[in-house]
Amino acid sequence: VCACLCVLQIDEEVAKLLQLKAQIGGDDGKHQFVLKTAKGTRDYNPKQMAIRERVFNTIISCFKRHGAETIDTPVFELKETLTGKYGEDSKLIYDLKDQGGELLSLRYDLTVPFARYLAMNKITNIKRYHIAKVYRRDNPAMTRGRYREFYQCDFDIAGQYDGMIPDAECLKIVHEILSELDLGDFRIKVNDRRILDGMFAVCGVPDDKFRSICSTVDKLDKMPWEDVKKEMVNEKGLSEEVADRIGEYVSLQGGMDLAERLLQDHRMSQSKQACAGLSDIKLLFSYLQLFQVTDKVVFDLSLARGLDYYTGIIYEAVLTQAGAESVSVGSVAGGGRYDGLVGMFDPKGRKVPCVGVSIGIERIFSIMEHKAEVSAEKVRTTEVQVMVASAQKNLLEEKLRLITELWDAGIKAEVMYKKNPKLLSQLQHCEESGIPLVAILGEQELKDGVVKLRVVATREEVDISRADLIAEIRKRTSEA
Amino acid sequence: VCACLCVLQIDEEVAKLLQLKAQIGGDDGKHQFVLKTAKGTRDYNPKQMAIRERVFNTIISCFKRHGAETIDTPVFELKETLTGKYGEDSKLIYDLKDQGGELLSLRYDLTVPFARYLAMNKITNIKRYHIAKVYRRDNPAMTRGRYREFYQCDFDIAGQYDGMIPDAECLKIVHEILSELDLGDFRIKVNDRRILDGMFAVCGVPDDKFRSICSTVDKLDKMPWEDVKKEMVNEKGLSEEVADRIGEYVSLQGGMDLAERLLQDHRMSQSKQACAGLSDIKLLFSYLQLFQVTDKVVFDLSLARGLDYYTGIIYEAVLTQAGAESVSVGSVAGGGRYDGLVGMFDPKGRKVPCVGVSIGIERIFSIMEHKAEVSAEKVRTTEVQVMVASAQKNLLEEKLRLITELWDAGIKAEVMYKKNPKLLSQLQHCEESGIPLVAILGEQELKDGVVKLRVVATREEVDISRADLIAEIRKRTSEA
Repeated sequence: VCACLCVLQIDEEVAKLLQLKAQIGGDDGKHQFVLKTAKGTRDYNPKQMAIRERVFNTIISCFKRHGAETIDTPVFELKETLTGKYGEDSKLIYDLKDQGGELLSLRYDLTVPFARYLAMNKITNIKRYHIAKVYRRDNPAMTRGRYREFYQCDFDIAGQYDGMIPDAECLKIVHEILSELDLGDFRIKVNDRRILDGMFAVCGVPDDKFRSICSTVDKLDKMPWEDVKKEMVNEKGLSEEVADRIGEYVSLQGGMDLAERLLQDHRMSQSKQACAGLSDIKLLFSYLQLFQVTDKVVFDLSLARGLDYYTGIIYEAVLTQAGAESVSVGSVAGGGRYDGLVGMFDPKGRKVPCVGVSIGIERIFSIMEHKAEVSAEKVRTTEVQVMVASAQKNLLEEKLRLITELWDAGIKAEVMYKKNPKLLSQLQHCEESGIPLVAILGEQELKDGVVKLRVVATREEVDISRADLIAEIRKRTSEA
Repeated sequence: VCACLCVLQIDEEVAKLLQLKAQIGGDDGKHQFVLKTAKGTRDYNPKQMAIRERVFNTIISCFKRHGAETIDTPVFELKETLTGKYGEDSKLIYDLKDQGGELLSLRYDLTVPFARYLAMNKITNIKRYHIAKVYRRDNPAMTRGRYREFYQCDFDIAGQYDGMIPDAECLKIVHEILSELDLGDFRIKVNDRRILDGMFAVCGVPDDKFRSICSTVDKLDKMPWEDVKKEMVNEKGLSEEVADRIGEYVSLQGGMDLAERLLQDHRMSQSKQACAGLSDIKLLFSYLQLFQVTDKVVFDLSLARGLDYYTGIIYEAVLTQAGAESVSVGSVAGGGRYDGLVGMFDPKGRKVPCVGVSIGIERIFSIMEHKAEVSAEKVRTTEVQVMVASAQKNLLEEKLRLITELWDAGIKAEVMYKKNPKLLSQLQHCEESGIPLVAILGEQELKDGVVKLRVVATREEVDISRADLIAEIRKRTSEA
């Protein structure tokens, strides 16, 4: 951690010096702008936005199908609202400059603001989604879709309910979203914080090392067991024997059957905590069967999500297609139960049990963008149905009159901002931006009270009377 | 300005001290959380979000109808990107703390990031909208819908085009949006920076006082002419005579006819700048006639928008219904032409002419929220079509099986997260959240292979076979 932080700082200082250098500028002494976005951030261009909109629509439809409301919270919170929620990741929080007044920080996730919102408004029951940007002063690997400013896409269920029903719905939602987005095959790993803790206890890990060993286990998806074991023994000070016991458990994967087996396990059955977790996994799988999603869900004892606030079930979805079309991505969704977080904000410590899931939308964008690039499919960035064009000069007024009729009828239409554009350049614009129809006006058409409607793809042209034009455009561009 | 700033600072210090005091806490020495959002910010609850979504849909549909693409930019920019763009308002910019690395500031509007985006990507032609939050360390009047974090909703056309066609389309868009949102009567005031400057010149205002006098004129919508004149004479040092000449002009309102009259005016006609502006106003009105929006547009010589970067036409839309249903609102849209801003970012100073409009969405939210409050209309916060309920105990599994069928068919459905909820509490939930249908399962229905479909509003109940249920729900909840 310390070495990481140093590298981060050096990196930052270099960036600052380079920026200063650029400002001092060249020989002419002129002020030079550094024409860039802040480190770790990016603009979304229209094509990226079109893809983003499509992904959001799929996800939001799913959330709405499951009856979720939505809320929004400010981009910054009082600094102390975030304090003590993220463990050692707290160093990655962006603070605002003290310009007089409250001390503020940019939100680090959407879960802590959600908990603050519930406590502040004394809400004990809600099913909500929240899609917004969060901020982490991390060293981003932007090529892999990781940024300092990135979207989170959260769905959470708060309330005191009968066990595992909301938890199962969260997994159903992940299953629906990943299936509909068509990202290739995926798997949803499930575990429980209590099973992990119970397992550590019965294997002989000292209480004060649970969190630390947990974060070592978390590396199993990136490192082979031998290296993880080495870290446990050499860095974290476990005995070989204890590490090996853990090793046996964390290699286990299965379904309801595995939970049943572990409930009978001579060591695991000693831990009340582990048994509570295992019973809940069993119940969870019974609901997942009814939801018809067990094909993708695996009970995996090596899953150990980092965040401190989880108290029960945890899960993570990964794409399993090797290399996923050459874009390497890790988890695309994750979440779990956090029954204690809201209580941290309530003056009387009243708890509100919560379970939720966060969709790793930036990675999904990366995959979709890559897919669009390699496929022949052209991504449209507007929805224009018809271009109002002219075949001769001096028809601007007539075109504006016609486009007004179209706009007022709700037709998406464009006209070139030139008095006398060439017909060819008008047609070219249609080709480039995928506009399917052109309504062409000429002296003859005006005389005849018609418009020449041209289909861009086929070059077919047909005269349509002015009175029928709107209906004809609607018919030809309806998405049936 | 100085007095304002002092008040602002005192206010901030008081807030900080109160926060400290609260942290030190009560007698028990326990750490007390300040459970609030940052000053000048707010959460949006589900009801507010439902209204917000409706307003956004109207606005985005309009932007799309006019063929706009959309982009997004980061919430913070390099500090120097914002430097020198906002005049004395720069003191309201939020800076991020220097945590090593680049110096960053939260965006103050969407126009400067847009110009930076165009210059950085060498884009010379685009029609784009951008809806996002911006940040101003202002003293907010939150009761009047003014916040430190607030949405902007911008539509801009960049490119070298024939005069006034894009400008007229911006006004058409404002007209469409305000009409569709049904906020009551409105008026769009139009003027031109060149007409203002020309007018100041021919009235005898010294060149170096143009901007300062301009901001005094800008107060005419809040102050009577006598007070504005006093400020010009006593504070800004104009002679009475010069002020009176200005007073004659800024009282003028009209349409194309007024532009024609002023082109003949013995004083105005002396200014080349003013004449260029007046000719453009004439051309603008000819296009507005074709767009059929002249009913709401007024050429008003007292309109003087503050921002430095405007170079040509400027406009502002105001609601004219007295008091607008007791919510006092000012301008609800504004914008203008800024042909020089992109050039400020281009290393070679290459200009990209731009014209745009910003919709004052927060004020519109305030009005809509107020409207919803006073009307009997119940705002739904979910779109759930059907609740899956049970009449007897021990039917959870059957309900989960049924709701899975519904979800997989795209029906928006909810089930209570209890094993054995009472039928009454299930029906009550439907009443409260406006769910129109209940699909009730009971022993008998399961035996008969049917579902009892209940219409919440009428309490009508009808048995539907399982095979027909999805079609029946679709039919009864289609929005035709």
